[in-house]
Amino acid sequence: MDRIYFDNAATTALDPQVLDVMMPFLSEKFGNPSSVYSYGRETKMAIENARKTVARILNAEPGEIFFTSGGTESTNTALNAAIRDLGCRHIITSPLEHHATLHTVEYLAHTGQARLSFVRLTDKGHIDIAHLEELLATSPERTVVTLMHANNEIGNLLKIKAVGDLCEKYDAIFHSDTVQTVGHYPFDLKGLKVHFINGAGHKFHGPKGIGILYVNRNIQIRPYINGGSQERNMRAGTENIYGIVGFARALELATERYEQDSAHVKGLKLYMAEKLREHFPGIIFNGDTFGSSLYTVLNVSFPMTERSELLLFNLDMSGICVSGGSACTSGANSVSHVIKAIHNGMSATMVPIRFSFSRHNTTAQVDMVIEKLKELI
Amino acid sequence: MDRIYFDNAATTALDPQVLDVMMPFLSEKFGNPSSVYSYGRETKMAIENARKTVARILNAEPGEIFFTSGGTESTNTALNAAIRDLGCRHIITSPLEHHATLHTVEYLAHTGQARLSFVRLTDKGHIDIAHLEELLATSPERTVVTLMHANNEIGNLLKIKAVGDLCEKYDAIFHSDTVQTVGHYPFDLKGLKVHFINGAGHKFHGPKGIGILYVNRNIQIRPYINGGSQERNMRAGTENIYGIVGFARALELATERYEQDSAHVKGLKLYMAEKLREHFPGIIFNGDTFGSSLYTVLNVSFPMTERSELLLFNLDMSGICVSGGSACTSGANSVSHVIKAIHNGMSATMVPIRFSFSRHNTTAQVDMVIEKLKELI
Repeated sequence: MDRIYFDNAATTALDPQVLDVMMPFLSEKFGNPSSVYSYGRETKMAIENARKTVARILNAEPGEIFFTSGGTESTNTALNAAIRDLGCRHIITSPLEHHATLHTVEYLAHTGQARLSFVRLTDKGHIDIAHLEELLATSPERTVVTLMHANNEIGNLLKIKAVGDLCEKYDAIFHSDTVQTVGHYPFDLKGLKVHFINGAGHKFHGPKGIGILYVNRNIQIRPYINGGSQERNMRAGTENIYGIVGFARALELATERYEQDSAHVKGLKLYMAEKLREHFPGIIFNGDTFGSSLYTVLNVSFPMTERSELLLFNLDMSGICVSGGSACTSGANSVSHVIKAIHNGMSATMVPIRFSFSRHNTTAQVDMVIEKLKELI
Repeated sequence: MDRIYFDNAATTALDPQVLDVMMPFLSEKFGNPSSVYSYGRETKMAIENARKTVARILNAEPGEIFFTSGGTESTNTALNAAIRDLGCRHIITSPLEHHATLHTVEYLAHTGQARLSFVRLTDKGHIDIAHLEELLATSPERTVVTLMHANNEIGNLLKIKAVGDLCEKYDAIFHSDTVQTVGHYPFDLKGLKVHFINGAGHKFHGPKGIGILYVNRNIQIRPYINGGSQERNMRAGTENIYGIVGFARALELATERYEQDSAHVKGLKLYMAEKLREHFPGIIFNGDTFGSSLYTVLNVSFPMTERSELLLFNLDMSGICVSGGSACTSGANSVSHVIKAIHNGMSATMVPIRFSFSRHNTTAQVDMVIEKLKELI
């Protein structure tokens, strides 16, 4: 049996068309973009063109886009800057955030740099907007709100526009971790009241080790990584040129293919959900699966049995790649903080599995996975 | 005229043999190394093998090697950790450090996290070891010493063993920016009293966007980039797998070829110095060029004339890539802080040019550059 890869929320295959634009910079075009000679200016130009492409697609200004080593670095940069440079002394977040956010805000709170509040969740695991407003309205300190645009484990989508409007009303800084949505949804940053968003190339068939941080032009922050004057003094270090051109090309491809890919992938998700319901009556879908949710992610809990406990292991033995939580924590081998947060402890009696899809997946693969699940459970 | 690249201290060409080992991870082997399934374990294994290779070559433990996005991030991580986690309240550095160090320590001092001292330099631009001891002996606070192993502009080499011994005597933390020496000199980290060193793949024919931080096993620090549990909870973010395997392969090749390459490159440096002396009587060699100095770097100041002022520009027009200072600051187009520091103001009357060589350069290229310089000056 060929491998079936249903873990596209963890990482995706690099598109050969993306690799094509990276290759010249992995061979003859190796000049340091900070050099003054023409050979360096050639790579500098490639970086600035990539920046323009990204800005155009997200409807931002090129001066608002900074290349980083990935989504995690971008989140660290934004949240530290909100405290250090923008005067925020209060952080509002949710228990469902990625560890890049949670561990950063926990550190900031633990070291006394800011107070930390968690916004309540609704039944379906969405942010309780009324509670968010209450927290904002009663905060004596300037606040930074950090809420992810889409949850990487259960797929729930944030009402990013509404949250942005609330943040503006209360003069709060708004960071949204958009790692699961950049390259998957159209963006109009000029229409959103958001100060920081981030993206990671490898989530949409681009390279690993490269990401972006969008910094709204109305705010001024210092770099998190100090040193040379790269990225207009905002992110030091010799530029990862192939990563940068790869990121831009992957975003371009994702945008060109958005209509067809999103329809196809959403179709796979709904088809698989239907088949799961048909064959496994005891399952629970985690999150707002059929409502405001990523079209790429389907998170299902199976009743705990001696067999289902070994499900991840047995799926792997059958060449099927899925995950129990996010990849970043799956090494920990415990129930994810997200599933715990939305099920209030009930999670111990269920086995959650995240299936996440890409344009490379097919309904035939879904059928094969369903057949294998029937065998295994 | 073909391009002549004499700016290898800025960045080097990726070796095709390095690209070869990266390619599988840029195509079929894209699994997330943090995943539990075998497909992720395959990339995880590649990372751990790379770590073992790097550790073996530097004579360190694999548990002491952490992959980062580059030398600059590594320096930021080390210096922030020295203050935050290791109780240092005093930083000793030199005016010749790379901006990754200088801008980081300036920030730490500016925000009141530590006091900053600059060690005096000798005539040839070396660290005055007696003054360093004086600074250490009279420091009431715990100190972190950060001194680069080799200066990226003038090539001066630090007596790293002597500095390490001094740091041990005074219970100081020692960070050495070894970006210009990792991949260029043999290392024996078990024989050095150093707590942190860093490396960047692109300085020795490896990829950009990847570096290492060595953290001595006797100290415990927190991550600078918080998030997932990658790099044993020390550096969050989905791993740049191709970068990591490329870094290790480049270091392996550099080590295998060390005897022949260092002899060849040193030969080029000395040959060019001889030719320069022969044809340009008014020049000054910056740094301890013929003493304790990188074999890769030759920094020469030409007397300022109407013609020499445009030297960098005219060399570029002739397809010759060299730099005035470090690439990271060359955009700034002012005399480098290093040249200023060693010449006490005299630098304004001279035009410094850094020639830096690699195994891809030849004496024929040196001859061509000398001929071009004769035309231009």
